Amino acid sequence: MPNTPVEHIIDLDKILEEIRIALGQNDLKRAAEIMGELRPADQAEIFSDLDEDEQRLLLSALSPEDSADIFEELDDEQALELAREIPDEKLIPIMDEMEPDEAADLLGDMRPERARKLLEELEDPEEIRPLLLHPDETAGGLMTSEFLALRRRMTAAEAIEAIRQWQPEAETIYYLFVVDRYGRLVGVINLRQLIVAPPDALIQDIMDEDVIYVTADVDQEEVARLMARYDLLALPVVDENKILLGVITFDDLVDVLEEEATEDLQRYGGAEPLERPYLDTSPVIITKKRIGWLLILFLTATLTGSVMKLFEDEIQAMVALTLFVPLLIGTGGNAGSQTTATIIRELATGNVEPRDALRVWWHEARVAVLLGLGMAVPAFIRAITWVDNPMLATTVAVSIVVLVLWATGVGSLLPLVAAKFGVDPALVSGPLMSTMVDATGLLIYFSIAKILLGL
Amino acid sequence: MPNTPVEHIIDLDKILEEIRIALGQNDLKRAAEIMGELRPADQAEIFSDLDEDEQRLLLSALSPEDSADIFEELDDEQALELAREIPDEKLIPIMDEMEPDEAADLLGDMRPERARKLLEELEDPEEIRPLLLHPDETAGGLMTSEFLALRRRMTAAEAIEAIRQWQPEAETIYYLFVVDRYGRLVGVINLRQLIVAPPDALIQDIMDEDVIYVTADVDQEEVARLMARYDLLALPVVDENKILLGVITFDDLVDVLEEEATEDLQRYGGAEPLERPYLDTSPVIITKKRIGWLLILFLTATLTGSVMKLFEDEIQAMVALTLFVPLLIGTGGNAGSQTTATIIRELATGNVEPRDALRVWWHEARVAVLLGLGMAVPAFIRAITWVDNPMLATTVAVSIVVLVLWATGVGSLLPLVAAKFGVDPALVSGPLMSTMVDATGLLIYFSIAKILLGL
Repeated sequence: MPNTPVEHIIDLDKILEEIRIALGQNDLKRAAEIMGELRPADQAEIFSDLDEDEQRLLLSALSPEDSADIFEELDDEQALELAREIPDEKLIPIMDEMEPDEAADLLGDMRPERARKLLEELEDPEEIRPLLLHPDETAGGLMTSEFLALRRRMTAAEAIEAIRQWQPEAETIYYLFVVDRYGRLVGVINLRQLIVAPPDALIQDIMDEDVIYVTADVDQEEVARLMARYDLLALPVVDENKILLGVITFDDLVDVLEEEATEDLQRYGGAEPLERPYLDTSPVIITKKRIGWLLILFLTATLTGSVMKLFEDEIQAMVALTLFVPLLIGTGGNAGSQTTATIIRELATGNVEPRDALRVWWHEARVAVLLGLGMAVPAFIRAITWVDNPMLATTVAVSIVVLVLWATGVGSLLPLVAAKFGVDPALVSGPLMSTMVDATGLLIYFSIAKILLGL
Repeated sequence: MPNTPVEHIIDLDKILEEIRIALGQNDLKRAAEIMGELRPADQAEIFSDLDEDEQRLLLSALSPEDSADIFEELDDEQALELAREIPDEKLIPIMDEMEPDEAADLLGDMRPERARKLLEELEDPEEIRPLLLHPDETAGGLMTSEFLALRRRMTAAEAIEAIRQWQPEAETIYYLFVVDRYGRLVGVINLRQLIVAPPDALIQDIMDEDVIYVTADVDQEEVARLMARYDLLALPVVDENKILLGVITFDDLVDVLEEEATEDLQRYGGAEPLERPYLDTSPVIITKKRIGWLLILFLTATLTGSVMKLFEDEIQAMVALTLFVPLLIGTGGNAGSQTTATIIRELATGNVEPRDALRVWWHEARVAVLLGLGMAVPAFIRAITWVDNPMLATTVAVSIVVLVLWATGVGSLLPLVAAKFGVDPALVSGPLMSTMVDATGLLIYFSIAKILLGL
């Protein structure tokens, strides 16, 4: 796609070429200079596109700050691999420049011995150590410990002076959280409120006491849902005594939203999510992520063969019956996927909850009757022109109505049941639903055929 | 799910009940009071759960500010329906309190005559009129005209004073954009930089001249990708002369990310996206969104019947061949969906581009060989235990390898071709891909059977 806005701002291909040339001529200073002018996301993209030798060469020329930016933007796996290549004495100044939550993520992925050794030599290990306690996909795993907490008795002017003194790099500054003398979260004030307040106003008089917060063990999906629902730029994380532990910022929210959407679609497509970009993942790993589901679905699908074996006599008597098998199970599967996709997203955005199951089913039942009747007519016409047997055509038409009703029922209730029991509804993927509907759909079709055709 | 963080903060069911009781007793003041204490997102959820009579009653008691908050949080369709019920003289004070971009969205959805009439009577029509020019799903449709632009020659102290004077409600305040005397965008400074700068520093000396911006016609998906990539809280929108027209804020980014993920999953599931929450959409409209694809897929699927008719003699000679039809086309479809889901997301996040087609195909081909071999063994075992015919079992095993190779090839290239021609890759939905692979898969299976079994 030529001329997208990103390219109107910056031509990454050209810059990549320039850096490659500079590296080729061993002009490391020039390469580092070009990198230094880029935004972190672009630095990381360029860096990923270089081959390993070029990466090593470039890294030796970059400042620890720029290297830290690149580490922060790389995927976890890529960052880990890169860290393996770098000796401790070069890695430590880089990690000192990284955001504490990013440094903790990297340490958490390393071999424990190396992580322990690196942690001890970092400038401020106490900022990072508590972050190592929490699993990656929880609020505790997302939060940063780099935040400025205000006290209730400060004035607005003192708070602004504190910000000026602190000179924070982080985006955590737009929401300032207020703690009591024990470090317990008691309020929030945003930078805008702070600026427009009279300089001598006390924080406790202008802060908002009604703070939305989470504990460290809350799942990242729930974190994202809360921040998105209430348009929060930052979300405080507390322990069981409401002591403020850290802050989750909006860039984490965006990452989680994208990550969850990717996971949902991949699961829905019937594959375990990949941990890093597709083209950087080896075919062996991709195969591992996919073959489990494929085998389970294959074994479930052998049920369809069993159903067909059950009706072998009927098929023998009228081979034309089999002509419609792929058509019917395809339509059942498609109708079911449409429903499943809708319900998965409604669950993800919180519009539908498991307790709505009955309403959802009744909603789908009415849709299914309309869809089934709409499909029955073309199905009848197609069948009659194919086989010139009105009873067989009627069988196909009736089957399609029953099948669509059945498929949308299964497709709507499966994700709701999954959610009810705390299983990711996207796991009830399109293929799983289709495969389940296939076998039962054949059973419905052959049973109707047996009755209507008197086989 | 009991005890989710949202519920630990607030028990919406209980509050809904309280409001219902207050409304039932005609105690409008109490109902309005309870609503007034809620956050806008919760107000809108409660409001949606009330029936129409209750909504009307409650709205008559709410302040224009609270009503405006509810309007902003409702889906476009819901807001439009509600607006239909409210006479102009009540709607105008509410719209005056709404954010200009939200008010413009609402006006844009109304009958043109009513929109024109309302616009004239609003307090500040000039703030809204320019926003009406842009389609909903573009940068122009997302932006708000309520922003504070700084001048280059201002000092930091003057800028802070300007913010204090303006007392903005909006979240647009965290990034401040700088314009020249013609209103052209020349720089950006964030509130943090402004606060930590020396009071007498000139804006032009502390601002960042390297601003990321878009023109009003850029698609919202591209807007979201830019803001997510560079972690932007706000993105300025300019006209062709770089005159600053408006600002897109991070709450819009979150909405777009969720909307696009929903659209992708629904399209992938083979249905046109719904415009409003599922349970509020009538079965007739849901049917309309689904039946088009279902019919197209049905007609494509009749190809499978044609392929089976083509091999009718072979099937007649060995009915056992049909036992494996659902199994094989199921596996082909599943393998293809896994690939398609991965590529759609890689395209959405910008990790893969259409020009990577060859690399992607080669990647998939290696995965397919591994998957195919992995599947061939259980397929052979299953077949031999079923039919006790080694040649037929071999046919099934060989077919599965070829089929997986074919399905992953189609599944990877279809979305890339779609993206190349500017079509939404999610449109190349799982069902479409499956249906295409079904017919060709059967052709492969029966051809291999013909050769190996000598039928």
